[in-house]
Amino acid sequence: MRLKITSFVFMKLAKQNKISVIAFDADDTLWKNEDYFRTAEKEFCDIMAEYGEREDIMKELFKIEIRNLSYYGFGIKGFVLSMTEAYLKICKGEFNPIKQEQILNIGKQMLEEEVILLEGVEQTLKQVHGKYRLVVATKGDLLDQERKLERSGLSKYFHHIEVMSDKKQSNYTKLIKHLDIKPDEFLMIGNSLKSDILPVVELGGHAAYVPYHTTWEYEQMEPESIFSNQFYTLDKISDLPDLLS
Amino acid sequence: MRLKITSFVFMKLAKQNKISVIAFDADDTLWKNEDYFRTAEKEFCDIMAEYGEREDIMKELFKIEIRNLSYYGFGIKGFVLSMTEAYLKICKGEFNPIKQEQILNIGKQMLEEEVILLEGVEQTLKQVHGKYRLVVATKGDLLDQERKLERSGLSKYFHHIEVMSDKKQSNYTKLIKHLDIKPDEFLMIGNSLKSDILPVVELGGHAAYVPYHTTWEYEQMEPESIFSNQFYTLDKISDLPDLLS
Repeated sequence: MRLKITSFVFMKLAKQNKISVIAFDADDTLWKNEDYFRTAEKEFCDIMAEYGEREDIMKELFKIEIRNLSYYGFGIKGFVLSMTEAYLKICKGEFNPIKQEQILNIGKQMLEEEVILLEGVEQTLKQVHGKYRLVVATKGDLLDQERKLERSGLSKYFHHIEVMSDKKQSNYTKLIKHLDIKPDEFLMIGNSLKSDILPVVELGGHAAYVPYHTTWEYEQMEPESIFSNQFYTLDKISDLPDLLS
Repeated sequence: MRLKITSFVFMKLAKQNKISVIAFDADDTLWKNEDYFRTAEKEFCDIMAEYGEREDIMKELFKIEIRNLSYYGFGIKGFVLSMTEAYLKICKGEFNPIKQEQILNIGKQMLEEEVILLEGVEQTLKQVHGKYRLVVATKGDLLDQERKLERSGLSKYFHHIEVMSDKKQSNYTKLIKHLDIKPDEFLMIGNSLKSDILPVVELGGHAAYVPYHTTWEYEQMEPESIFSNQFYTLDKISDLPDLLS
């Protein structure tokens, strides 16, 4: 059964809540990320400009990315491989090695991007640290995510980082089992309704949605009518201590 | 200080050993893997044949792979990106999109390879299962490794799978801390002296080396004169229960 959820602006957790672990999504919850993909897509379309319209190029790339998820999973390396495949498809034999090199360089540049914390993140972590076991629960390339956590300076607040191959209910079930807690002791914070919120409330956990200004098409979903009282919406991450108090 | 170790054929663990967790490397310890990379390299050299000698092509690819480790880490996706980069370097502007497509296909084929268990693996796991907490400690692409464990049918023997971005001492320290044990309660089994054995004995853990018939150049090292009595060599994985008895 798939629970329907809807976003309601803000509420407090029930007083008798037993939250012991707070898991934070990383990309676009702790730090800026999706913007770098938007920039990369724009660069890719610029490189491909002579072969067609931006909209068609983006459509082709997205189609290939989604088809390749089962091979590559999430993250920058798979994105670069998909851009390469899209180029082969789009160029119709008119291949320019300089363009291919530019595609590889987009990826390396992304892997070296500065980690920019979102507003209120560090202050919020300071407030909840010590009161709850804090973990990072993210998907993407393992090394890339570990490196970003390291560069972010936030490692000291977290018990550990869990890089997940996907964020489906089964992945969360495994994580919660691994944390040795019951689902209702688990609170997930994130910016993706599809990946951070729905699978968690479906298995009986708590989830707080903190929207980000841009979302990858694949992650987009509309909040539907509410059927979970363990789903919360925060305007900003710094509302978290209020939710917990 | 870097401990020097050497391989000695076989010995029993000291009777007072406190081993509680046995961690198994996956690739070439539980299942066949490096052979697929050898085949892929051969295919890559065949595709590149018109541009130069096999030896020079392999040298270029290896150089690029090693340089890219800091970007991509270990695994098939990074390998394909490095083959692409090597192709750009080798072809000197004579780029053929069909060859690039073949390179992408080598990667996809590798990601779909059958998981072939090595001899004695399942029988050995059956024997030690229940007596110790068993984990998989492997590096590579997250999704790929999880998928291989799933396909292997061995999941049921393991407490969890730890996919590591690298297998340096700091990675093992983190793993051991995460397992909530002391280093001398930890026994690592693997086929790489550099990744599975040295870092573990250096931090005070136990490590058993089970050689595999082929090793990636990057992982190669010679066993040196012995300075660790927590290092063991097994002819085959099915000697493990004897080591523990």
